[in-house]
Amino acid sequence: MDGSTAFSPDRNILCLFDVDGTLTRPREKIDPLLDEFFQSLRRKVKIGIVGGSDYPKIAEQLGEGDEVVHKFDYVFAENGTVQFKEGKLISRQAIQNQIGEELLQDLINYCLRYMGLMKLPKKRGTFIEFRSGMINISPIGRSCTQEERIEFSELDRREKIRERFVEALQQEFAGKGLRFTRGGLISFDIFPEGWDKRLCLEVLEGESLDTIYFFGNETSLGGNDYEIFNDPRTVGFTVYAPEDTARLCREMFFSGLPNES
Amino acid sequence: MDGSTAFSPDRNILCLFDVDGTLTRPREKIDPLLDEFFQSLRRKVKIGIVGGSDYPKIAEQLGEGDEVVHKFDYVFAENGTVQFKEGKLISRQAIQNQIGEELLQDLINYCLRYMGLMKLPKKRGTFIEFRSGMINISPIGRSCTQEERIEFSELDRREKIRERFVEALQQEFAGKGLRFTRGGLISFDIFPEGWDKRLCLEVLEGESLDTIYFFGNETSLGGNDYEIFNDPRTVGFTVYAPEDTARLCREMFFSGLPNES
Ligand SMILES: [Mg+2]
Ligand SMILES: [Mg+2]
Ligand SMILES: [Mg+2]
Ligand SMILES: [Mg+2]
Repeated sequence: MDGSTAFSPDRNILCLFDVDGTLTRPREKIDPLLDEFFQSLRRKVKIGIVGGSDYPKIAEQLGEGDEVVHKFDYVFAENGTVQFKEGKLISRQAIQNQIGEELLQDLINYCLRYMGLMKLPKKRGTFIEFRSGMINISPIGRSCTQEERIEFSELDRREKIRERFVEALQQEFAGKGLRFTRGGLISFDIFPEGWDKRLCLEVLEGESLDTIYFFGNETSLGGNDYEIFNDPRTVGFTVYAPEDTARLCREMFFSGLPNES
Repeated sequence: MDGSTAFSPDRNILCLFDVDGTLTRPREKIDPLLDEFFQSLRRKVKIGIVGGSDYPKIAEQLGEGDEVVHKFDYVFAENGTVQFKEGKLISRQAIQNQIGEELLQDLINYCLRYMGLMKLPKKRGTFIEFRSGMINISPIGRSCTQEERIEFSELDRREKIRERFVEALQQEFAGKGLRFTRGGLISFDIFPEGWDKRLCLEVLEGESLDTIYFFGNETSLGGNDYEIFNDPRTVGFTVYAPEDTARLCREMFFSGLPNES
């Protein structure tokens, strides 16, 4: 067996990565060189991802077709509510089962009305996207172009559109067991309390791992990596860009070896 | 050359088909036997489709990947605003260029608020889908399951949810150059006046065809086949199901030939 491509027999460490901003630029494909690097990292440690996007988007960012579930030991989509292990879907949570149709609809209707009163330079479509473990709210609409996305995100930074929207929701739905997390440039997510990225740790607890290193770029309060980063079951790292993630991993796992960059 | 697979040299007739309810059951894939039949029809006449859905959905219903543009001489998606000829995209219209951002947003906001006040047994996501030549409005949300879709459509039949929604819009936006068309089970479309399926006839006028036969299942007033069916440039047929469409074509083009069923 060629030592340079075989997995180490003793991979009891997991490096668990956020996707957008951590392995890839937001919503873009992974850089081929970084892709190669993380696959070489996989020979030494187990690697997994826990992204906020849905599975099709994550799959598109990290490979062709369904490659992603074969390139990573664990793939957790939608904040860990859609769970793949060793290439197979092992479970999927549904938000309506957790919070009920009544609250779900109150929430959706509130968001529809709120956005129906909001004036923006442009609006497109898909303002509310229903996923397995969350709903995603975008005031401009997810189907905007890249250019429109940037235009909105600049306006959002100045006028705090998403922040004020989330504050209104937090007030309206206080005590209802809901959480709100910004992610990406044009939207935020609503999900049941506890259904943040820590969800995937429940799966991982049964996997006899020595250590789970978590790498994320939104680890501060309100960011979608905050809870898992601060969870005692992980050793957390804050990263600033995909290259930064790779640099950290290189230092941690390849430092004794020259010529591995 | 094998006469049974070659195209007739003199294909100056076009059979132009609606998709949902005409070539396929709504939103489902084409039956393989019917698929074969329409491909055999293509040896005798040109065949084209003009569907209300977007191109990815039509492609999924009528083939694998992008096969559809090679299986049909003309493919018109989104009511003819996205136009393919002989496998190539020839043009695409954008609703915002036609009606302007201001009216577009008034329309979107009105729909958001209207749906935000509507109570249904279930709501999911993607209530407003932005396409090239239209916006699609679905009170339950397009991301509902097949079961939820049927549940909604039964409720809609009893309570005329979509019909009343469209009436409210027609009143609110009277004189603004907008049209509203139901299509499928859970949604309706809004598009600029004149941007119905007749749009594709402008492309086809330059194609030196002797006759355009149009087949659709929603040819009555308010249905999305109404305008093209009644246009003098087409000879229209109303069909009730995909099998009915095939039967008609068989009678029209294979009647002299035994054993062609
Ligand atoms: Mg991130
Ligand atoms: Mg931690
Ligand atoms: Mg139809
Ligand atoms: Mg006609």
